[in-house]
Amino acid sequence: MPDYKLGPLWGTEVNASDLKDNYKGTKVTPYTVTPGGIDNLALHSKDVFTIPGKGEFSVDFKGYFRVARGHPTTNDWTTFEIFVNILDLKLFGKHKDLGEISVSLNPDLRSAGQIFPASAANQGAKCRIATAVHFDMPRAGLSVFNKEPILLMNEHVKSIPPVDDPNGHALLFMLPLFDRTKPSGKAVAYLTSLRYGADNYITEAEAKSYQRRN
Amino acid sequence: MPDYKLGPLWGTEVNASDLKDNYKGTKVTPYTVTPGGIDNLALHSKDVFTIPGKGEFSVDFKGYFRVARGHPTTNDWTTFEIFVNILDLKLFGKHKDLGEISVSLNPDLRSAGQIFPASAANQGAKCRIATAVHFDMPRAGLSVFNKEPILLMNEHVKSIPPVDDPNGHALLFMLPLFDRTKPSGKAVAYLTSLRYGADNYITEAEAKSYQRRN
Repeated sequence: MPDYKLGPLWGTEVNASDLKDNYKGTKVTPYTVTPGGIDNLALHSKDVFTIPGKGEFSVDFKGYFRVARGHPTTNDWTTFEIFVNILDLKLFGKHKDLGEISVSLNPDLRSAGQIFPASAANQGAKCRIATAVHFDMPRAGLSVFNKEPILLMNEHVKSIPPVDDPNGHALLFMLPLFDRTKPSGKAVAYLTSLRYGADNYITEAEAKSYQRRN
Repeated sequence: MPDYKLGPLWGTEVNASDLKDNYKGTKVTPYTVTPGGIDNLALHSKDVFTIPGKGEFSVDFKGYFRVARGHPTTNDWTTFEIFVNILDLKLFGKHKDLGEISVSLNPDLRSAGQIFPASAANQGAKCRIATAVHFDMPRAGLSVFNKEPILLMNEHVKSIPPVDDPNGHALLFMLPLFDRTKPSGKAVAYLTSLRYGADNYITEAEAKSYQRRN
């Protein structure tokens, strides 16, 4: 699978070297194009897993993500182009049968996306992020990852970034999850549904605390 | 992007060495699990492309695909597990502004999928295939490929393979297409909609003819 033919998977790189971290207190203005930055936002999700032979499991997660959001090509809400890369992601959940579950970014793929402009001044923008993660479920003896993107999307983005917006979902169908120790084997679980919401900015201390957690 | 950490992208390998090619005349029985084989089927699709600065283009394609369908784990319509790999795919279309367009399988990614069993004896099975292709549009000066799968799916599969079934669609949202000569650059086009139908078996001569076409 020669890398030079495909380029990095997935998406487009955001140069984060000249972007500053945004934390709690950052003002967000609706229907307005925002200069580039690195957003540290609280995040929650409800994921449904199907594990063959075991059943279906719905799990609520809470955590954060740190997203490099490139400079917009224009300041016009109907024509801008903005690329994003997820730099870090940590989510924690618990299920009565599966035990504690943690989600972290997969460093071997690029979690990348784009915000698309709205069709009119007071309409919503649209967002897609192809996301690659590890799901660790130590009590269930599973540490799994996705080879195809978990496509986080939101077709009604009212601000950049979309803070306090519970309307995200992943566009997926029986997304196969592979055992990290047997990546060439067949899927050992499936992600069958994911809904998420980006919450508001967190403090720098909260972000650093998430970054230290495993 | 070390391959050993991720395993081959995407999906699960089907060992096609003991599978025979199926051509026109092959009998298909509804709601029945079929022994493994390699299906040579006519295929059609309607794809919609968005090309920034140029507009939106809807294109009708016709062609074939050759799909290795592994042996089922059971003969029971409600419990089987079947994996598939697309071995070849050729589609041809024409658009008044874009000119002639051809679609072919991308050999640098594995187009892989799975058929999931039905929930009851006379219910439909479900199918997903993560597909990687090249779109060649010589008159438009574009030769592009997808880094994220074009997820062909059908949630109401009445037979294996699903012949004469026009109900397939791709689960996607603004799927970025990259220039084959600049795979690390940003997307130059987007696939915004795809509907497809698997038609019936074609003859061996028709399959060979497609295989020779560029």
